Amino acid sequence: MGLNYLHTMVRVKDLEKSMAFYALLGLKETRRYDSEEGRFSLIFMAPEGQEDRPIELTYNWDGDDALPSDSRHFGHLAYGVDNIYETCAHLEANGVVINRPPRDGRMAFIRSPDNISIELLQNGDALAPAEPWLSMGNTGHW
Amino acid sequence: MGLNYLHTMVRVKDLEKSMAFYALLGLKETRRYDSEEGRFSLIFMAPEGQEDRPIELTYNWDGDDALPSDSRHFGHLAYGVDNIYETCAHLEANGVVINRPPRDGRMAFIRSPDNISIELLQNGDALAPAEPWLSMGNTGHW
Repeated sequence: MGLNYLHTMVRVKDLEKSMAFYALLGLKETRRYDSEEGRFSLIFMAPEGQEDRPIELTYNWDGDDALPSDSRHFGHLAYGVDNIYETCAHLEANGVVINRPPRDGRMAFIRSPDNISIELLQNGDALAPAEPWLSMGNTGHW
Repeated sequence: MGLNYLHTMVRVKDLEKSMAFYALLGLKETRRYDSEEGRFSLIFMAPEGQEDRPIELTYNWDGDDALPSDSRHFGHLAYGVDNIYETCAHLEANGVVINRPPRDGRMAFIRSPDNISIELLQNGDALAPAEPWLSMGNTGHW
């Protein structure tokens, strides 16, 4: 019974805003399908060199009043980064709230525009603790 | 700003039941971390040969009353399969409800014990439509 991982799908309310968010994170569009008949778009976005590990954004043209949502069963998407301080500074400079700052030089959490929790993990060893992250408190939950 | 995909995390209420479900699907445990202090376990499970594309099960030892949950922002996990009829028959024989049967020989949906939606897609071309799937109705939503 062969089985292989394909993607993780998340629904988005505002496609432009969401694509900008994931692009800011470093994901690129790899594939797109627009259905005139179904009035929806599917956009696959993946890290460079990992085109086979995309997220799929599902966008309903006529809106989705249930978004942004929250949930308990779904936890988060996780991405490794080369420098967690640079990544968080770049995100913050572009208006993304760092819900759980990388006080330990190792782990941070942010939220997508639709409230999808995203974990960022430093690749390799943790960085030495540093300001402004060291004394930055948490914001909201993740 | 290097970034690479790591995993998708889902929370589980009954670890044994959930691990049995994902094992039935064809995922194997690749890594496990038990925290006595935090009273939680993290279990990574992945398809064979795709150990770098795991899901992470988060299990809180003292339970989680918010599970099973539902949500709108999280869509599904997707897996490709070699024979969608065999996979669905195997799952069904083991008590899994096929919420969206593969009437088209191409796509099916099931739910994990915690209500995580899982899409199964036939690898390559769709199979020829066949019973009992062809005349099987949908159950619930996904």
